[in-house]
Amino acid sequence: MSRIDGRTPQQLRPVTIERGWSKHAEGSVLVSFGDTKVLCNASVTEGVPRWRKGSGEGWVTAEYAMLPRATNTRGDRESVKGRIGGRTHEISRLIGRSLRAVIDYKALGENTIVLDCDVLQADGGTRTAAITGAYVALADAITWAQTTKKLIKPSRKPLTGTVSAISVGIVDGTPLLDLRYEEDVRADTDMNVVCTGDGRFVEVQGTAEAEPFDRDELNALLDLAAGGCAELADLQRKALDAALER
Amino acid sequence: MSRIDGRTPQQLRPVTIERGWSKHAEGSVLVSFGDTKVLCNASVTEGVPRWRKGSGEGWVTAEYAMLPRATNTRGDRESVKGRIGGRTHEISRLIGRSLRAVIDYKALGENTIVLDCDVLQADGGTRTAAITGAYVALADAITWAQTTKKLIKPSRKPLTGTVSAISVGIVDGTPLLDLRYEEDVRADTDMNVVCTGDGRFVEVQGTAEAEPFDRDELNALLDLAAGGCAELADLQRKALDAALER
Amino acid sequence: MSRIDGRTPQQLRPVTIERGWSKHAEGSVLVSFGDTKVLCNASVTEGVPRWRKGSGEGWVTAEYAMLPRATNTRGDRESVKGRIGGRTHEISRLIGRSLRAVIDYKALGENTIVLDCDVLQADGGTRTAAITGAYVALADAITWAQTTKKLIKPSRKPLTGTVSAISVGIVDGTPLLDLRYEEDVRADTDMNVVCTGDGRFVEVQGTAEAEPFDRDELNALLDLAAGGCAELADLQRKALDAALER
Amino acid sequence: MSRIDGRTPQQLRPVTIERGWSKHAEGSVLVSFGDTKVLCNASVTEGVPRWRKGSGEGWVTAEYAMLPRATNTRGDRESVKGRIGGRTHEISRLIGRSLRAVIDYKALGENTIVLDCDVLQADGGTRTAAITGAYVALADAITWAQTTKKLIKPSRKPLTGTVSAISVGIVDGTPLLDLRYEEDVRADTDMNVVCTGDGRFVEVQGTAEAEPFDRDELNALLDLAAGGCAELADLQRKALDAALER
Amino acid sequence: MSRIDGRTPQQLRPVTIERGWSKHAEGSVLVSFGDTKVLCNASVTEGVPRWRKGSGEGWVTAEYAMLPRATNTRGDRESVKGRIGGRTHEISRLIGRSLRAVIDYKALGENTIVLDCDVLQADGGTRTAAITGAYVALADAITWAQTTKKLIKPSRKPLTGTVSAISVGIVDGTPLLDLRYEEDVRADTDMNVVCTGDGRFVEVQGTAEAEPFDRDELNALLDLAAGGCAELADLQRKALDAALER
Amino acid sequence: MSRIDGRTPQQLRPVTIERGWSKHAEGSVLVSFGDTKVLCNASVTEGVPRWRKGSGEGWVTAEYAMLPRATNTRGDRESVKGRIGGRTHEISRLIGRSLRAVIDYKALGENTIVLDCDVLQADGGTRTAAITGAYVALADAITWAQTTKKLIKPSRKPLTGTVSAISVGIVDGTPLLDLRYEEDVRADTDMNVVCTGDGRFVEVQGTAEAEPFDRDELNALLDLAAGGCAELADLQRKALDAALER
Repeated sequence: MSRIDGRTPQQLRPVTIERGWSKHAEGSVLVSFGDTKVLCNASVTEGVPRWRKGSGEGWVTAEYAMLPRATNTRGDRESVKGRIGGRTHEISRLIGRSLRAVIDYKALGENTIVLDCDVLQADGGTRTAAITGAYVALADAITWAQTTKKLIKPSRKPLTGTVSAISVGIVDGTPLLDLRYEEDVRADTDMNVVCTGDGRFVEVQGTAEAEPFDRDELNALLDLAAGGCAELADLQRKALDAALER
Repeated sequence: MSRIDGRTPQQLRPVTIERGWSKHAEGSVLVSFGDTKVLCNASVTEGVPRWRKGSGEGWVTAEYAMLPRATNTRGDRESVKGRIGGRTHEISRLIGRSLRAVIDYKALGENTIVLDCDVLQADGGTRTAAITGAYVALADAITWAQTTKKLIKPSRKPLTGTVSAISVGIVDGTPLLDLRYEEDVRADTDMNVVCTGDGRFVEVQGTAEAEPFDRDELNALLDLAAGGCAELADLQRKALDAALER
Repeated sequence: MSRIDGRTPQQLRPVTIERGWSKHAEGSVLVSFGDTKVLCNASVTEGVPRWRKGSGEGWVTAEYAMLPRATNTRGDRESVKGRIGGRTHEISRLIGRSLRAVIDYKALGENTIVLDCDVLQADGGTRTAAITGAYVALADAITWAQTTKKLIKPSRKPLTGTVSAISVGIVDGTPLLDLRYEEDVRADTDMNVVCTGDGRFVEVQGTAEAEPFDRDELNALLDLAAGGCAELADLQRKALDAALER
Repeated sequence: MSRIDGRTPQQLRPVTIERGWSKHAEGSVLVSFGDTKVLCNASVTEGVPRWRKGSGEGWVTAEYAMLPRATNTRGDRESVKGRIGGRTHEISRLIGRSLRAVIDYKALGENTIVLDCDVLQADGGTRTAAITGAYVALADAITWAQTTKKLIKPSRKPLTGTVSAISVGIVDGTPLLDLRYEEDVRADTDMNVVCTGDGRFVEVQGTAEAEPFDRDELNALLDLAAGGCAELADLQRKALDAALER
Repeated sequence: MSRIDGRTPQQLRPVTIERGWSKHAEGSVLVSFGDTKVLCNASVTEGVPRWRKGSGEGWVTAEYAMLPRATNTRGDRESVKGRIGGRTHEISRLIGRSLRAVIDYKALGENTIVLDCDVLQADGGTRTAAITGAYVALADAITWAQTTKKLIKPSRKPLTGTVSAISVGIVDGTPLLDLRYEEDVRADTDMNVVCTGDGRFVEVQGTAEAEPFDRDELNALLDLAAGGCAELADLQRKALDAALER
Repeated sequence: MSRIDGRTPQQLRPVTIERGWSKHAEGSVLVSFGDTKVLCNASVTEGVPRWRKGSGEGWVTAEYAMLPRATNTRGDRESVKGRIGGRTHEISRLIGRSLRAVIDYKALGENTIVLDCDVLQADGGTRTAAITGAYVALADAITWAQTTKKLIKPSRKPLTGTVSAISVGIVDGTPLLDLRYEEDVRADTDMNVVCTGDGRFVEVQGTAEAEPFDRDELNALLDLAAGGCAELADLQRKALDAALER
């Protein structure tokens, strides 16, 4: 089977990770998985939400959103509708949990980091691109808090690992890595997998869109995803190795 | 390791499925998994949402909610807050998708069934109890639509299978089936699995609450869940075999 | 005239008051007036709303709601609509005022009790069943606060009396006690009366649904209601006399 | 006992009913009960709400609100808070029901009349002033619809009677008519009574603010209210007898 | 060209400024520009919003709204819609900014004055009438705060000048002052101008409703507006020169 | 006086207009005025809002928003707050009006174009950059509707001119063109001017932030703005002269 864009089933789309995109945010990454482009801005503030005060521990959270015309047909703004939709809520929570899986709250100290992941252009895999890019923005924001602003002692290690995410799915009976939108809508099963850099799982969310899937199919998808996440972890590492001018 | 309530790791809590609980709903099930009690009411209406009109196909959707004092400390009402929380959205969507996985829209015809799953008392596993009970309410509602109201031809089979759900998790290194609240809060990994009666997967949602999990742990959890779902499918069948007085 | 269910005009429906229904709430009562079933949960918390701090006085309030399919046709959830309807507001306020009529705020101390009255199944008289059941849940919650949690000195008497409520109405020219839904929609005049155990009035809310009513009709309705409330006060007493296992 | 403003217990405050206050509304009345001033505008539109279409019957509804500084201390705007409070809901519904009690829907035809009752200055009794003034605005709007706009045949009688309302209460043991704000806050019992011009009751809403009330007190209050409503009916008649320039 | 009401192009409508309209507000003005009537109530409270605490400086803000039937056809209430419209927001902000232009925050001390401008009847120019009336209410409120309540030292001068506003527009090629509604809807260009008593500009908001306007037209409009504002400043002065009974 | 970035008082920041930024929108422009970056997406749909149906005329509207971290400190999302702020409302309306000033509704036919202007990075002048970029996106969307989709006959000219906008202000007594954020906060007077390509005015919005301004200052600002708009009109023309690959 040949894919729309000529990729092999286990091949990622071209991935770019552009650090320092915005001049205001403490960490700012424009990540692209093919035509999917997500701006991930990390904002650091001293202090924590009320329920955590005095604990000596920090907090990391995320908000995901799509520009109204990020997709092929325009969607109404959630601010205009006056309420956030279920899908937005769900993805914001997923990104937050994924990043918190590699955070040592004690080492972070009573500081809060908010990750804003705004989809500028969508073509499938926006939540996995958001997690992958947000990790890099988070890392930059922590470095800023340790060096520029001295909110965290440089000797501490608030990050206990790295985290990246990828989508996989079964299209016409074939398990595929990193689905574009056109593949995604045709998939029988759709799975998003979040892994740490050492190959363990943070989130596994598989959904039968049409036909229920069996254990063998699940295993094939997990194999594909593990490979994709490892590649992404490598790209994150390379991106972070470069110097960041501020 | 011995569990709080003396169960073995692979043992379900006592499960009851009480059909015909409310006199108003076309399908009405009070399901309990131990102390977790969820009232699942199915409402059938002729017609479908606007975006589906003229398609000849039906629709099934779900709304999940908790009574404010279903939990140990009182939660604010979402109606009073004026907005639905992310968790509520997420679970409502999960229940809807799970039920739609066993629906033949064509056979259902242009009819809509809404499943209201209201948690009267919570002790872990509310979403899995909701899915398991909602399936039975859905089956009763379809029978009603075929026999009492003649909305669907009796020869059609709108249900293509059965669906049930269970939670599993790793607590102190041991994979456990059907977590109670006290186990749930201590779990390193928490997974909700939705299966069809023939043992295939509809949803797999695993989350590392503390430590990321590896492939072996994932496999152990999937084994446990598959067993639990099979038992629940059996209990659903038995419940539905009994006559229902209206 | 014979009523749908064979009752005499001055006869209550079968009333049950089940204490300790939920394991979480400090007071929990499932009350039924015939097919009307309301779950009344009392939640005690130390402290009072901001506007009452430092007064040495407590507070009691109530929230009423209906499950979407408590009625014959499904109603939209107020949480989904994003706003509470006028009827819900009105009844919540009525329940709160009724209970506060028998509360000695000083004796309660700076503690707050919230009564959640959720209608699980509706067949007329939901607000009067809610008040009648909520009183019993309130009494249990106060006992809990005095004995289990020691929030209130056992020597104090935060309850100055008992309170119960009943609906009355004129149907086809005949005054009837405790209307079922089918009677309620046909009533010319509809009245809800809240009484203390010593036979005085806390609330009298009479509404001409079709024809205005004269003073004689009003008097007949008040007589009926006073009798019904006295019977309910007796049932409340009997329910509270039994031991409650926690 | 002498009242703050020197009235006898059974005496109304000075009442004025100014018709044609606004040039836009089909009926427009500025009513004052002493310092309480309410602007009652009636808007007539052809057609009825969707649920009533094709019935040949009309509809009358009301919306009550207070200007933020109608009271002694400024209240937040409900439009700014984004939600309507329980008290506002309750009073809007009361006004609507009261007016509908004297409407013949068939004679009204498929037309809708909305009564906007906006409190410009409050000093107790705003809801009863609103009902009393709204009735006059309603009568003017119906005349307009019959004469100016020909929406209703002049031979029909959409009004089956007149309606007015007054508050009564027990202050320091004495039943008083038409409470000012300072009396209202000190009242043990507070009752709002809506009567037709022929002396029958449309609404009786009595509330024990402090002490429950007995049947004798209730009777004394009803007597006072009946007298007050009769006086108001007379004032309404006189106001409507005058010619209205448009 | 002759105007609907016979005015010359540079003539204001009859303007009235009635002080002390409401007995509750610290400053209360009913202003009318012809048939446009706006009630402007000023509320003084000790203290400032959180973001200004400890600054030693006060705050002045405004809220504008229209009664639903202030206009020729009834508009839905913003409180019922649950959100404030763009036009309301825009005008509230304009009034607030205009008044703050003549406030010395230091002299005001840590006190807040809120101006509620509620349009009772609209016939064009509601925002300019609101600003003109609100200034007088503000002046009265400051006097109250200095004399009656002693919140501000009498020696201080919180007002650095006076402020008034007028609308101008080009109708059928002729620049006109103080447009009525019927003129406003036919205007090619519509401009609102806010001036201080010494003839300088606080706000200039010109909008081409149909045809863009050139520099000459702009100049003609500014000339007209300056003249109108000067007349209004004079009327404000006269109104404030009279004694105000409280 | 020398400006922070070395510009002369009458010099624009570097302006870039990047067409075809997003692959989904019918017109898509990333405009930058120095560090201010706004993504302007134009969405064309057949049909018009209900109130315009059957008129044969089209509609153009705009929505403006800022990403939460477009600014130096993070702002809360309006979708999360559940309401749109006054500033957002105001600017959305301004952009819509400005574009409609150069639209011939008849020539557009019953089609709707929505301009989404999302600020990705803010450094002063976001509304003027948005108008300037949105015009170009609008032009591209109209071309698409005439050529690719044939919604509008190619012979028609829905655009009657071009429109651009610039901010001007008085800082330390000197009138400056195109203020950066740091200049904007220090400005005594702030004015936004929208002009057509032939040098006429569409909107003039001047605000005294600190000191009221006199007629001479107003004239100096208008001169500056007219020059800036002319330069921008030129840049728009050049941008649109280039071929656009789709």
